[in-house]
Amino acid sequence: MSEDLPSRLKTRRRLGADTPDVGLAQDVEYGVLNELVGYSLRRAQIRIYQDFLDVMEPWSITPPRFSAMTLIRNNDSMKLTDLARAMGIARSGAVEVVNSLEKLGFVRRRESPTDRRAFALELTGKGGEALDTATALILEHDARISARLSEQEHIQLRELLDKLG
Amino acid sequence: MSEDLPSRLKTRRRLGADTPDVGLAQDVEYGVLNELVGYSLRRAQIRIYQDFLDVMEPWSITPPRFSAMTLIRNNDSMKLTDLARAMGIARSGAVEVVNSLEKLGFVRRRESPTDRRAFALELTGKGGEALDTATALILEHDARISARLSEQEHIQLRELLDKLG
Repeated sequence: MSEDLPSRLKTRRRLGADTPDVGLAQDVEYGVLNELVGYSLRRAQIRIYQDFLDVMEPWSITPPRFSAMTLIRNNDSMKLTDLARAMGIARSGAVEVVNSLEKLGFVRRRESPTDRRAFALELTGKGGEALDTATALILEHDARISARLSEQEHIQLRELLDKLG
Repeated sequence: MSEDLPSRLKTRRRLGADTPDVGLAQDVEYGVLNELVGYSLRRAQIRIYQDFLDVMEPWSITPPRFSAMTLIRNNDSMKLTDLARAMGIARSGAVEVVNSLEKLGFVRRRESPTDRRAFALELTGKGGEALDTATALILEHDARISARLSEQEHIQLRELLDKLG
């Protein structure tokens, strides 16, 4: 699946008429927004998310779908409740993500070996292959978005983010 | 509008059955997610967004609506295109935000004094009052989410975030 990766990267930054400009506008007065950590975070998220979508759109993999698939791969017999907790989202959100991954044929539910009332989640073969490709592309994406940070700043940023909220 | 603020803050953290647990789950293997700046950012966003929603829900003010109203207040005769650029989002997204703010009676369009083909955006009286209340609540929200950061870490975090993307 990853053979056509270089050509995909080349076309990644094509700009459409509706593509947002991502830097702060110089001639605009931002008022209180300039003081808010939450707004810096939101701006960073907007910039990064666009790159993520450009890369992953052909694979139908959104950020929550990628997180869910990675967690399901790394945790045997994961239940829906565990997944929601691990992702830090509401159970209803996890149900939605898993339903969409089932429709894509990436994830299936089977009866849990330890709890008859619950289902254990697992990747299908197709899901595993898609996740391999997605992981390679997302590691590149993450390196790209943090290319202006030194190794130490990289660690620092993650530590500071963990202190938020 | 802000008289009932203390009682609102007291009930802010009430937990419903569907409220997500926001820390990393200790017994879960996160795999490659642990290495991604994008995932740290996403987790922080999830934690913060919940607090924002708890505070702003009764005012029908989402983060993009708050940004848009603040920008419209601080920039005279702002046009839709300027707003989209200032927010770093697509024009279609700005249209959506402005339409919802018009429906709420917070923003109106009037003919631009400088460009007959475009409309200038402005806050209504009701919109200005709502923004005053929202700003007070959001400054508190922002102080709360960054309470574990020192003043220097606060600045550092914003600088590191600006380097992303």
